[in-house]
Amino acid sequence: MALMRLTPLPHRAIVPVSMSLITLMTDFGLKDGNVGVMKGVILGIAPRAQIVDLSHFISPQNVREAALILRRSAPYFPPETIHVVVVDPGVGTSRRPIAAQLGPQRFVGPDNGVITLLLEHAERYGWPVAVVHLDRPQFWLPEISHVFHGRDIFAPAAAHLANGAALSDLGTPVSDPVLLALPRPERTPAGWRGEIIYIDHFGNLASNILSEHLPEWLDAAEKVTVRLCGVEIRGLVETFGERAPGALAALFGSTGNLIVSVVNGSAAEALGAKVGDPCEVERLVESPGLDV
Amino acid sequence: MALMRLTPLPHRAIVPVSMSLITLMTDFGLKDGNVGVMKGVILGIAPRAQIVDLSHFISPQNVREAALILRRSAPYFPPETIHVVVVDPGVGTSRRPIAAQLGPQRFVGPDNGVITLLLEHAERYGWPVAVVHLDRPQFWLPEISHVFHGRDIFAPAAAHLANGAALSDLGTPVSDPVLLALPRPERTPAGWRGEIIYIDHFGNLASNILSEHLPEWLDAAEKVTVRLCGVEIRGLVETFGERAPGALAALFGSTGNLIVSVVNGSAAEALGAKVGDPCEVERLVESPGLDV
Amino acid sequence: MALMRLTPLPHRAIVPVSMSLITLMTDFGLKDGNVGVMKGVILGIAPRAQIVDLSHFISPQNVREAALILRRSAPYFPPETIHVVVVDPGVGTSRRPIAAQLGPQRFVGPDNGVITLLLEHAERYGWPVAVVHLDRPQFWLPEISHVFHGRDIFAPAAAHLANGAALSDLGTPVSDPVLLALPRPERTPAGWRGEIIYIDHFGNLASNILSEHLPEWLDAAEKVTVRLCGVEIRGLVETFGERAPGALAALFGSTGNLIVSVVNGSAAEALGAKVGDPCEVERLVESPGLDV
Repeated sequence: MALMRLTPLPHRAIVPVSMSLITLMTDFGLKDGNVGVMKGVILGIAPRAQIVDLSHFISPQNVREAALILRRSAPYFPPETIHVVVVDPGVGTSRRPIAAQLGPQRFVGPDNGVITLLLEHAERYGWPVAVVHLDRPQFWLPEISHVFHGRDIFAPAAAHLANGAALSDLGTPVSDPVLLALPRPERTPAGWRGEIIYIDHFGNLASNILSEHLPEWLDAAEKVTVRLCGVEIRGLVETFGERAPGALAALFGSTGNLIVSVVNGSAAEALGAKVGDPCEVERLVESPGLDV
Repeated sequence: MALMRLTPLPHRAIVPVSMSLITLMTDFGLKDGNVGVMKGVILGIAPRAQIVDLSHFISPQNVREAALILRRSAPYFPPETIHVVVVDPGVGTSRRPIAAQLGPQRFVGPDNGVITLLLEHAERYGWPVAVVHLDRPQFWLPEISHVFHGRDIFAPAAAHLANGAALSDLGTPVSDPVLLALPRPERTPAGWRGEIIYIDHFGNLASNILSEHLPEWLDAAEKVTVRLCGVEIRGLVETFGERAPGALAALFGSTGNLIVSVVNGSAAEALGAKVGDPCEVERLVESPGLDV
Repeated sequence: MALMRLTPLPHRAIVPVSMSLITLMTDFGLKDGNVGVMKGVILGIAPRAQIVDLSHFISPQNVREAALILRRSAPYFPPETIHVVVVDPGVGTSRRPIAAQLGPQRFVGPDNGVITLLLEHAERYGWPVAVVHLDRPQFWLPEISHVFHGRDIFAPAAAHLANGAALSDLGTPVSDPVLLALPRPERTPAGWRGEIIYIDHFGNLASNILSEHLPEWLDAAEKVTVRLCGVEIRGLVETFGERAPGALAALFGSTGNLIVSVVNGSAAEALGAKVGDPCEVERLVESPGLDV
């Protein structure tokens, strides 16, 4: 069986829009009103901005999780979309507020590494990258609390960008943005060893092993074995419906990560899995010369 | 006591709008970013579309639940609103992606029966109905994953409809859309027997017995008895506040379903109720000739 | 250490917008589709309105909680924003549906006291205040259920306001809106005694003691002691990062309330705290003349 090769999400050619689009991602939840307040601030400054929620259920203070979702989501937005990410345990300390151009996408948020994966992606494609320190109070609200820069600095900065301000207007260039040290998959004698990096709403387990790590394998998907949490799954499938409800399935998710699922169920529950658990993939070689 | 007769939600006369409205309903939850990604795709193609979330907390793979919420929500949207529903356990299999005109409302999503109730409603009113198989890749994203057609097929198709594409542009006519076999209430010697079909955020229990099943009863609501989960509730009320906090109340919900509530509490918790539990309603006849 | 003095949130000067902004706050949750339905109704009447969700996870029937979030959120929205609040245990009873002008902000919802804090704020600043009884059915949907006035009365009324209707068009003036009796902090010999009035998504405990209650104290924040739930916290900080992860911290939140947090954790869980628990603050006077 030959599986589709998911290319690693370059920027898509999409019709440019004149109306600015702003996305919001936070760990605020949706009860307290704080996401709404950020939108009020944005629309007070940029009444024609369009605002899209990316996620407000990032695990509290989990910058790594936000980095991952930003990386896999941003490429699907129109060019010049402004992604505001407020997962900000260092709010009010010396950590810098920043804005960035990361290829076709823009970012506003704390300098805590949340841009790591999107920045690497832009550099890999040779796209222009620029980062500025948001150090010009004329682009903030007039009064700044020490604990809610999302409202007082990031929302207004994004709104001014949406209104046409240049990145360079908003602050001083930064050459050393904070980057996260993220786990990378490693080669093993027979394949790759990675780890679970995200568990989604359905309980699917996403690893950091990507389809691009094993491109030639996809033409013989039935010979691939995945091991994690004490179980072994033989063969990759293309979609959930190829296995019976309740069965384990290994496949590539919609952004190219190797994932393990329980069909119509939760692999996280079934396996007691958690982020950081190791995941291995191997290609079985049953007899020499047969596995082309 | 005479209760208001809720008519069964025909299409409402509302001022037409030029800007297209798209609603989204999924079982994705709001953490993973996938709802935001669908909006990014839509706004990349149709920058002026307005997007409204209908629900993203449909129980995983629960097509029946989505069908119910779609049926009761869609009539409140302006004509030509495009309802995108992605509750799609068969994604990537041979199940067809479809789009439909269902009277004044439009639909985009998998051909798995989620349109059943809205389709029946349109047919009942003699409204035009049309369904097409979304089989023209020029209306999709250029690259299609096997596991996220919401992003790759349904969002772009909805955006093209919003931009003015005709339903017939998007695909080949379908004459046999999948329909769900849904539980229907049955007559009993003294009334109706149905079942709980939905439990809402407040723990109210909604049955499939409708006000239209017992129109003549509403003029003597105090003679009606409802039985479910081992309890009996005498008399229908018009609203929660007619009973004391903590008391059980039977009434017609805002879309005409017979519901059982605990005032300022949760009937689901109090009664241990679940979807599928039987529900009976009877009209007491105390003495002949008195129940007009 | 001198802490910033947060002034009590007057109306901010923000560029007026021509497009009307409507916020929604309910206790509906986001599963059932009812929030989406309200948006459908609004956009059917006012297609150009912009809608922002403030919160849909207000605890069921908790008018006090909604009043608090409305008070602290509304000042960050552009002038003439219409705030629709549907936390409405009295729906369908004799409680009045109302709309109000509360200084620069507008309100639509039930007359159950949810406007109390915003009304007091407006009166304190001498801003114009007006309340009307929504008693003119031509501004409602044609058919009114007894249990969903959010859809049938409040959404259409807000949409007509957004379309330019005057408050006085919508109904008869009301001179006695319902007001909540809310707990107020009291002076003690050495400071103030208040109570926990809100617990946020992060488990931070917000009290009703405000920075304005102790303005002169902020220049000697290290001499302040906070007691609640059996623990004592010495010194106020400006932000979370001044304490180690896991430590308790007392500080002023982003709208001026004294809050107690566990850094990168949940104070609510750590202390078993709940709304209504008492909270005391004292200023230590170690030796006369030294505490300037």
